[in-house]
Amino acid sequence: MRAVDLIRRKRDGGDLTAAEIGFLVGGIATGAVPDYQWAALCMAILWRGMSREETAALVEAMLHSGAVLDLSDIPGPKVDKHSTGGVGDKTSLIVAPIAAACGVSVPMVSGRGLGHTGGTLDQIVCIPGFRVDLDLAAYRRIARECGLVLVGQTAEIAPADRVLYALRDATATVESIPLITASILSKKLAEGIDALVLDVKTGDGAFMSREEDARRLAESMAGIGRALGKPVRVVLTDMHAPLGRAVGNALEVREAIECLRGGGPADLVEVSLALAAEMLLIGGVAADLDAARGRCRLAIADGSALDRLRRVVAAQGGDPAVCDQAEAVLPRARAMLPYRIDRPGFITRLLAWPVGQAAMLLGAGRPRVDAAIDPAAGIVIHRHVGERVAAGDVIAELHYDPRTADVQAALAMLETAVTVAAEPPPPRRLILDRL
Amino acid sequence: MRAVDLIRRKRDGGDLTAAEIGFLVGGIATGAVPDYQWAALCMAILWRGMSREETAALVEAMLHSGAVLDLSDIPGPKVDKHSTGGVGDKTSLIVAPIAAACGVSVPMVSGRGLGHTGGTLDQIVCIPGFRVDLDLAAYRRIARECGLVLVGQTAEIAPADRVLYALRDATATVESIPLITASILSKKLAEGIDALVLDVKTGDGAFMSREEDARRLAESMAGIGRALGKPVRVVLTDMHAPLGRAVGNALEVREAIECLRGGGPADLVEVSLALAAEMLLIGGVAADLDAARGRCRLAIADGSALDRLRRVVAAQGGDPAVCDQAEAVLPRARAMLPYRIDRPGFITRLLAWPVGQAAMLLGAGRPRVDAAIDPAAGIVIHRHVGERVAAGDVIAELHYDPRTADVQAALAMLETAVTVAAEPPPPRRLILDRL
Repeated sequence: MRAVDLIRRKRDGGDLTAAEIGFLVGGIATGAVPDYQWAALCMAILWRGMSREETAALVEAMLHSGAVLDLSDIPGPKVDKHSTGGVGDKTSLIVAPIAAACGVSVPMVSGRGLGHTGGTLDQIVCIPGFRVDLDLAAYRRIARECGLVLVGQTAEIAPADRVLYALRDATATVESIPLITASILSKKLAEGIDALVLDVKTGDGAFMSREEDARRLAESMAGIGRALGKPVRVVLTDMHAPLGRAVGNALEVREAIECLRGGGPADLVEVSLALAAEMLLIGGVAADLDAARGRCRLAIADGSALDRLRRVVAAQGGDPAVCDQAEAVLPRARAMLPYRIDRPGFITRLLAWPVGQAAMLLGAGRPRVDAAIDPAAGIVIHRHVGERVAAGDVIAELHYDPRTADVQAALAMLETAVTVAAEPPPPRRLILDRL
Repeated sequence: MRAVDLIRRKRDGGDLTAAEIGFLVGGIATGAVPDYQWAALCMAILWRGMSREETAALVEAMLHSGAVLDLSDIPGPKVDKHSTGGVGDKTSLIVAPIAAACGVSVPMVSGRGLGHTGGTLDQIVCIPGFRVDLDLAAYRRIARECGLVLVGQTAEIAPADRVLYALRDATATVESIPLITASILSKKLAEGIDALVLDVKTGDGAFMSREEDARRLAESMAGIGRALGKPVRVVLTDMHAPLGRAVGNALEVREAIECLRGGGPADLVEVSLALAAEMLLIGGVAADLDAARGRCRLAIADGSALDRLRRVVAAQGGDPAVCDQAEAVLPRARAMLPYRIDRPGFITRLLAWPVGQAAMLLGAGRPRVDAAIDPAAGIVIHRHVGERVAAGDVIAELHYDPRTADVQAALAMLETAVTVAAEPPPPRRLILDRL
């Protein structure tokens, strides 16, 4: 079997067998299939696509390129949640403690943010002392004791994906639906979970800006996950505007804790409850979605969700006081600049992409994979889509470090996000579909 | 400028500017554009194509990736000839001495064979003592003194092409017409020639088996060459069956010398005269194609073409006696096996590809770039397409070294090349077009 012949077949629109895909993925670790051959293959896959059988074989091969965890000693259903990424998306920090409080174990492996989108891992490490580099024994122990653990991806899990992910990023082959499907599912299924809830976002600030693309990705992931015998529920959610009012790591942790305390912005609460309820349903601890949503609400109201977060923060070395005095415990920015609107009306658009870009310029995100971030930097939105404003109103606040951030560039970017009109916009639909 | 953005643009069907193409090609030498990015870009180019302007810019950038020779001190028009490769193609060894004898200087830079196709460089090094690794001073001196020099590609000429050629070979991106055009033209134009004659072959044994593909390549090369201010003539020739009767390096040198002595198979003589005449015409030493063909015939008849070969062989350290006693001077195979046909009729097909494959199995060609070859190995065809055979006739002879060659596999491959039928085939058209 020669890689070049398999690249040629895919290039010409043919199908690859599971054995051939196994050979190609196995060749990543051994060097038998060098990165330049994979680069050409990724472009050919982006061009020609992959059948469901091929995509499933790719998931399996990548999943078995490293360790596959066995979490059968942890009681209860093990369910993880993954999002394709957005601006202001701190739902993981909300839904994981809720689901854990309701009897679902959440062994959550998270990633770092890149570009205008944030990452759960960057958020939780804002909590002083919080460690995400646990060894496997500590990971199991905390998952068992707290019903919840929050770590970063380890070198043992799906190493082929790490190589391909970097390669796709450098070769403009990220947008292929089979490759995205394989990347996400291989990592998640290697965690040893029983079921998975996926939040596929669509809109200006999402990876898949067009709803039809997001829907195709959602169908691919749901179909392939189920074909591999793993229950997968995909929720299609809106990402035209930032989710919630905080964008930036420490700011987002604060907002997530507000939600667990029963407060928080309505849009964020709605999406978080929808995702948490799906986790309960797919984990088999609730009979239907209404019952699941009710139990999630109760876990917030009775403080048990927040208590789960408090326990896992302590178990992972963080300061549990963050759950009660978030503002005092989390890093705070040295400077704040109000952004005032110069015209009255209704905010009809607050585009997620430029808001994410502006936050990145303030230091909250990474322009490159190896860039450092400022945990305190970011944007707090005071007037969101649909709200009425008067000329001179502060509609957002920029948090930054004046020694490092380019606040004028961030402000200019933020201004491009906002549209004000005489009439209010139609109400925002947050949950577009479930597959 | 970031390579990934340029790959994305090409992937989406957009055009690249000359400056962008210059950046990408320049990045090969500096490492700023690593091979995996070029691999993905090659696949995107194969997919989306390149405009004439883009292809011309690619030729120019690759051409200037290394030294560009200045041969203005060599008198007369400098014309090279290049073939896209075929089976039994020894025309370079025939046309170069003819053209030189007629007043055209031929500073010929040749390549080695790969796969089922042979290479001029592998042929000439069969002549004992012949050196192809000349320094630039010797190259100029011999070109001036003999009107002809035959060398291999040097590291100084179009180094970007060498990297890309190997990369394309490993990533199934060889077949892209803009990439082929850029590879051939960049190397040839860097030689400092005034004009170029290209032999684009089509048929079973050609790189472009379908005539429409070969025609597109021919049009691309002619158009781009002229757009860059270099006269280029492309001759489209048939490669369904081997050219001439000898396939294998020393065997082909013998047959080339036979042609220069006024003999040789009619098909080989016809194609060689056509190409040599184009060199005279484009070099401006003949007024029209008929006059050019007449002068070429004369150069054979009066021995001046053979004399040019004799002089260049001596100048490059080879034994000039090869021109008079080829069989005694050239390496000969240890063993010969006749291939007899088992049925009577007319040979209607003798497919070039399996004949080339059989010769490669005998040791005449390279299955891999780094494989060694046996200069004496090959196949001599006794009955060619259109000839009548009786059952038991020897239609070919396999030349090989029994210690190394897999003669049974070669014989089995050769058998697949032959079709015998009751009726003779229509006459073979060798010269399909000139552009």
